[in-house]
Amino acid sequence: MSNLEEIMRLHQGGKLETTLKHPIETMEDLAKVYTPGVAKVCQAIASDEEKAYELTIKKNTVAVISDGTAVLGLGDIGPRAAMPVMEGKAALFKQFADVDAVPICLDTKNTEEIIAVVKALAPTFGGINLEDISSPRCFEIERRLQEELDIPVFHDDQHGTAIVVLAGVLNALKVVNKDIRDVKIVVNGCGAAGISVAKMLLNAGAVNLIGVDRDGAINRSNVYEKPHWAEFAQLSNPNQEEGSLSDCIKGADVFIGVSAPNVLKVEDVRNMAKDAIVFAMANPTPEIDPELAAPYVKVMATGRSDYPNQINNVLCFPGIFRGALDCGAREINDAMKLAVAEAIAAAVDPAELSEHFIIPNPFDKRVVENIRIAVAEAAIRTGVARTSQLIGVR
Amino acid sequence: MSNLEEIMRLHQGGKLETTLKHPIETMEDLAKVYTPGVAKVCQAIASDEEKAYELTIKKNTVAVISDGTAVLGLGDIGPRAAMPVMEGKAALFKQFADVDAVPICLDTKNTEEIIAVVKALAPTFGGINLEDISSPRCFEIERRLQEELDIPVFHDDQHGTAIVVLAGVLNALKVVNKDIRDVKIVVNGCGAAGISVAKMLLNAGAVNLIGVDRDGAINRSNVYEKPHWAEFAQLSNPNQEEGSLSDCIKGADVFIGVSAPNVLKVEDVRNMAKDAIVFAMANPTPEIDPELAAPYVKVMATGRSDYPNQINNVLCFPGIFRGALDCGAREINDAMKLAVAEAIAAAVDPAELSEHFIIPNPFDKRVVENIRIAVAEAAIRTGVARTSQLIGVR
Repeated sequence: MSNLEEIMRLHQGGKLETTLKHPIETMEDLAKVYTPGVAKVCQAIASDEEKAYELTIKKNTVAVISDGTAVLGLGDIGPRAAMPVMEGKAALFKQFADVDAVPICLDTKNTEEIIAVVKALAPTFGGINLEDISSPRCFEIERRLQEELDIPVFHDDQHGTAIVVLAGVLNALKVVNKDIRDVKIVVNGCGAAGISVAKMLLNAGAVNLIGVDRDGAINRSNVYEKPHWAEFAQLSNPNQEEGSLSDCIKGADVFIGVSAPNVLKVEDVRNMAKDAIVFAMANPTPEIDPELAAPYVKVMATGRSDYPNQINNVLCFPGIFRGALDCGAREINDAMKLAVAEAIAAAVDPAELSEHFIIPNPFDKRVVENIRIAVAEAAIRTGVARTSQLIGVR
Repeated sequence: MSNLEEIMRLHQGGKLETTLKHPIETMEDLAKVYTPGVAKVCQAIASDEEKAYELTIKKNTVAVISDGTAVLGLGDIGPRAAMPVMEGKAALFKQFADVDAVPICLDTKNTEEIIAVVKALAPTFGGINLEDISSPRCFEIERRLQEELDIPVFHDDQHGTAIVVLAGVLNALKVVNKDIRDVKIVVNGCGAAGISVAKMLLNAGAVNLIGVDRDGAINRSNVYEKPHWAEFAQLSNPNQEEGSLSDCIKGADVFIGVSAPNVLKVEDVRNMAKDAIVFAMANPTPEIDPELAAPYVKVMATGRSDYPNQINNVLCFPGIFRGALDCGAREINDAMKLAVAEAIAAAVDPAELSEHFIIPNPFDKRVVENIRIAVAEAAIRTGVARTSQLIGVR
């Protein structure tokens, strides 16, 4: 069987099913899990809605929601064609963190309609993972939903990527013995993921950070129609650098590419500071071929599994929702995201840390457990947890 | 452990979980069920949307959707408190017919918003089971969704009940050796379920059928504000009978109660025709105490499991969606519903048929299989099936 045949076989009939925690095999079972017994359970929740966390699937269930507008590198392929990705994501939630996840693809691209639909669905779920929704709608949708709902809303393409990048940068800086507050960072590609990565780095202490898009460096001497660029111009580029990527990269310690294949030239990396760190995450073809960059770069990361240091969202989203569900978090705030990045970084044993190993293996079970504890502690510390104890020992 | 403690224990953390059809244990697995492999599957569906039935959970997954406005006998208890019922229903779908079902409770009671939400969700699912939505909104919601979607939309409280009642009536008539075209039928309680039961009986050949509500018999000399009553007045009561339940019941062969406890008096059943059939389905207290009715009634059915002949929706909904999914039905039409009622009736072996056994045992595996074949055959015959073969041998 060819690889493609094997892939198609694994997707036949979808990748998920539901199962019962307790079988229903007799009339007595039926009378307990359904009528008339279930009425007592309904009444318990009707008189105390927080009991939904104890007596329904809300306790352990997340919705993975997309409108199919920005799926992988495929773009706007629609809700039906997006389903295999959402199912895959739901499968990873279960496999890595025992989170039950329901993949839902929406037949609308209208921002207000998506917000209304997700709000209507919310009673069922303990969290909402937004996925593959195109920019700039994703910003408004996530912000509004998090404001209006009392469960965590997390756009993984933005924050999952940002958290794993920060984890990698923290470890890469340890390898080259530099401090995040001192380094010059260029983030190339200022879409949803790029802006989120940049903000995460700023939150973690970065100062001299410059965002570059197709028209060059984002700075305060320009006027931007996109509100997220206008806001970002205020937060970044303290020295008001101008010009192209090749201009800005000069002397940079860190390059973060969330952009397009082969946009970073050998000359550009040669112009970076000593012990340069390059995260070239365009997929499947990175911003620069790792072999070409190698002579000038100390730490290299990509989005690919066939090179060392793969930046992979699967390191983050299972654990972050595991922790959020376990403490009944109302949101996933910046303090929690920062704590998660540090937890991922710390999952690499200091003795093993090297330029070829800054990112832990997603199959390392310590990753999810470290994240779970970190996110719950940060939620409790910032007052967004429903319970100050982790519910259930895992 | 008391019965209540046992019920609460069975509901801890909800009654369902998701499971993976194929475990993800290596980077190679990850590359097949998620990126980059999954992109091929997305592209296959993007170029032919019908492939969603082959390559996603749509093939076997139904949404169980409620707004929590008419839950059991509890009324409008809201979406959070309704979840245990929807989870129970989803569990029954899986247990009885291997249908994967996702319970979803909506935080809106607005008819247009519910329609918009369910339409937006539809790409994910192969069918929609509406549940516990109050009348009269349930009529509009179901009608509009079925018109606008190409997957089956089925309000179980209306049609599930109607189908099982018809199955029971067909067998009861065999017991007393009467023909549905000749009998006088009184349906007491003209809410969503009552009207649906009445229409089902008319579709099956009943002629002299009278609907009675609190204000008496529904007939064409009255003007009704409720559009479903105005429509029903045109369809029923050919002799234009007037008056109360006690008036109309005189000489009736069949009484169907979908109403309230103890509204049927001993004198009323005494006034029915010889070999009277009484379905007293108010729950938990029937329209008449079966012991009191016994001397005057040949066949008695209730909604309770502690009497013979329990009218239980679980006989219908698992099998009807099993068949609809297996043939890729676009709707569940009247011909399909009629075929299902006949299939349920036929699941009682003629040798065993008696006044105490007109309804099969829901745990009898022939029930789901009979329904599955019947519904798919009727779908194919009426041109609403996507495939003329039953997909997969079960």
